[in-house]
Amino acid sequence: MVGDAPSRRQVVLTAPALLRLISLEGGEGAGKSTQLDALAAHLEALGEAVVQTREPGGSDGAEAIRRLLVEGSHERWSATSELFLFLAARQDHLERVIRPALARGAWVITDRYWDSTRVYQGLVGRLGLGDLDNLHERWLAPFRPGLTLLFDLPAEIGLARAHPGRFEAKGADFHARVRAGFLQLARAEPARFTVIDAQADLATVKARAKAALDTYRQHLAR
Amino acid sequence: MVGDAPSRRQVVLTAPALLRLISLEGGEGAGKSTQLDALAAHLEALGEAVVQTREPGGSDGAEAIRRLLVEGSHERWSATSELFLFLAARQDHLERVIRPALARGAWVITDRYWDSTRVYQGLVGRLGLGDLDNLHERWLAPFRPGLTLLFDLPAEIGLARAHPGRFEAKGADFHARVRAGFLQLARAEPARFTVIDAQADLATVKARAKAALDTYRQHLAR
Repeated sequence: MVGDAPSRRQVVLTAPALLRLISLEGGEGAGKSTQLDALAAHLEALGEAVVQTREPGGSDGAEAIRRLLVEGSHERWSATSELFLFLAARQDHLERVIRPALARGAWVITDRYWDSTRVYQGLVGRLGLGDLDNLHERWLAPFRPGLTLLFDLPAEIGLARAHPGRFEAKGADFHARVRAGFLQLARAEPARFTVIDAQADLATVKARAKAALDTYRQHLAR
Repeated sequence: MVGDAPSRRQVVLTAPALLRLISLEGGEGAGKSTQLDALAAHLEALGEAVVQTREPGGSDGAEAIRRLLVEGSHERWSATSELFLFLAARQDHLERVIRPALARGAWVITDRYWDSTRVYQGLVGRLGLGDLDNLHERWLAPFRPGLTLLFDLPAEIGLARAHPGRFEAKGADFHARVRAGFLQLARAEPARFTVIDAQADLATVKARAKAALDTYRQHLAR
């Protein structure tokens, strides 16, 4: 086995740090992957090393788990089973990709991360936000993103843009609750979250995301 | 989603009960599946309904997760990722198979269950037995087996009998620690565990397993 329970030993080291870990969050069809490419290109143009990744997935093992999560009926898994699959995938992603990249000084930009679990399983799936946060801190390497960009969009517009899949099949009310959940998280942590109106034209959205990243970089450099 | 967080609401109902849930535990090559067939046939001859099952697996979703766990390199998953995959599979198995079967009065006999996680991930994988027990009680439907039969065998004999696979590849020392772990659990809960010497001839092992089951049935009937 690799990395037996490293999470608990590293809490003190990693929890309070401002990391080069950026998460992009939001519902379906918000354009996160396009924005991820643009932000990575911006950092690379500044000479920075960047790892672009996504959740669920991002490592070989996590991508295998992703297939279980995104394929099949939308009732395939209960909220609890789904939660544990996401945690297994995230732990693998953390150990194999995120931690090594941060350790060598690279930036990591991930399309979805812990806040997606907090919204989909914790708030919408009703497993409880505080309970999930405790579980995450206790069992996983607790890398928190230094900056989270929330691409916000009315659910019906995002769904019309998104590819059909297991989560997309859950219906308009589900996606409206997802949007409300993300906005709730952003209100609770305004220093970490930047909310970007994803209905704006692409150039505007890109400019706002880039500005948020530059502000965060200046904050890190101080 | 099916069964949002039913586990926590049912703790009071299920934790103290003596259930018709029997687990067979032990290392590789201990003959658990042969014994499972014999015990199920014995109960069915007495007119009882029996569900034969196994972990990881036992439900469609859990069998899909099983393939991630038993295939690939023995270093494919860290102890923590592995743990969460087992928990996801167990939750699905509990919701879709074990709980419905117990609710309609059937016996459930499972080839491996929670004690395997406690040994492989908790003791051998060093995630911690108390921490794992708390996690299990907190998040999963906490059906405890009323009777656990531990088929005990020296690791080298079991390995010589077992099919090659991801867990079998972990080496003799690993399997010796697995054996010691199971014996530790059995010593801690002598009322639940019956340890059976799996080196005895097949007829003797079968007779001992059947006797333990009959004693438990009489206990339930009192």
